[in-house]
Amino acid sequence: MRYLITFSYDGSSFAGYQRQPNLRTVQEELEKALYKINNNQLTPICASGRTDKGVHALRAKAHFDLDISITLSKLVRALNSYTPPDIHVRDAIIVPGDFHARFLVKEKEYRYYISMGNFQPMLRNYVFYCPYYLNVAAMKKAIKYLKGVHDFRSFVSENKDKSNCVREIIDAKLNYDANQQLLTFIFRGNGFMKYQIRNMVGYLIRVGENKDKPEVIKEVLASKNRNQGFKTAPPEGLYLIDVSY
Amino acid sequence: MRYLITFSYDGSSFAGYQRQPNLRTVQEELEKALYKINNNQLTPICASGRTDKGVHALRAKAHFDLDISITLSKLVRALNSYTPPDIHVRDAIIVPGDFHARFLVKEKEYRYYISMGNFQPMLRNYVFYCPYYLNVAAMKKAIKYLKGVHDFRSFVSENKDKSNCVREIIDAKLNYDANQQLLTFIFRGNGFMKYQIRNMVGYLIRVGENKDKPEVIKEVLASKNRNQGFKTAPPEGLYLIDVSY
Repeated sequence: MRYLITFSYDGSSFAGYQRQPNLRTVQEELEKALYKINNNQLTPICASGRTDKGVHALRAKAHFDLDISITLSKLVRALNSYTPPDIHVRDAIIVPGDFHARFLVKEKEYRYYISMGNFQPMLRNYVFYCPYYLNVAAMKKAIKYLKGVHDFRSFVSENKDKSNCVREIIDAKLNYDANQQLLTFIFRGNGFMKYQIRNMVGYLIRVGENKDKPEVIKEVLASKNRNQGFKTAPPEGLYLIDVSY
Repeated sequence: MRYLITFSYDGSSFAGYQRQPNLRTVQEELEKALYKINNNQLTPICASGRTDKGVHALRAKAHFDLDISITLSKLVRALNSYTPPDIHVRDAIIVPGDFHARFLVKEKEYRYYISMGNFQPMLRNYVFYCPYYLNVAAMKKAIKYLKGVHDFRSFVSENKDKSNCVREIIDAKLNYDANQQLLTFIFRGNGFMKYQIRNMVGYLIRVGENKDKPEVIKEVLASKNRNQGFKTAPPEGLYLIDVSY
């Protein structure tokens, strides 16, 4: 039987989602729990995608097959009792045997949080603290140009295989809560590449610093070259919010 | 010269504010930083009060004396560079030589956060997750009876020296954000004893579970006896918000 779970994790103490030797990862913790649940059998899990070290997830999804028979509520309870407190399984459903949590993704939503307020140590792993004010209006203008189908090569990790960097961004917007001095960047798209969102936000920060005019983002996109002199935004502000099929 | 600092800390990884042998404490981290700043001299720090393991602070206050001459902004920067990231010094001022951060406290504000929403692992150390709904109206009624001058013996840690448990609570109220399913208990008073707030919240939870009517809190206060069969609320929801002189 194939199961699809929805789960959250606090990325602060993980080396990322994907299993890596000698590092603490979300995948390994989930697979260790499934091993116990599935009668001590190796049970590979396939997630909707990976996240990097320090990045959080609210409603990530993953599928796996179990040989045993178990109710959905028992499965959720067992997963939560065998995983550490920085992972939380929200629910589980049964899916057809040919369902695939990665290949069938229709849309993903990510959010990136920047605080321009006083540094609060409780939030240091959960938002990016920008120690100066950013030009919100300029960033709001610039982010719109990211919507649509583009070759996002300029915003992709240098190490990525760049055979195909064309993706569609369905929505890209920036909300500003002046009371909390909190910026929320919202991105919805059919797929995002390694570091793409952190690079897009990194470039938007440059616009917010008034170093580039908002329209220049069109030239950056067109250049198809990552070497445009902007930084990758740090991981702690990034959250995978939801995945839909 | 005597200095008064305002500082925040994330209590999650501390054994509490007060120095204890072989445990990581806020006081020890601050005193280690001051030792370096004050020409390798032991520099005792005196805080507005203690907090327990896992309790957070937004604007705690403490005083100390320095032999060296240093500007306030340099002092803040030096403290933040020598303390770990879960402590943050917000500002420093010069105070008279007879100023005392503990004895001269006029008022303290504490808040306690309870989430009745979906468990989010990112917030597990920063709010108390209550896995069921509480009767907000009943708790709002009950909390009012805590206002005023009372002998709070029924809400004090069993181990405390109970010679004088009379304190004044200037304000006690409960806000409910239905959108976020978040309860915020706000307490302002001239002083709070060990576990007093966590015990008051623990009792209010009992009222929220409809186990006691709101008015019964008057009898609990009058009993002057901690053995009333309610739990101490866990530390992760509690924040020292501010201290005034």
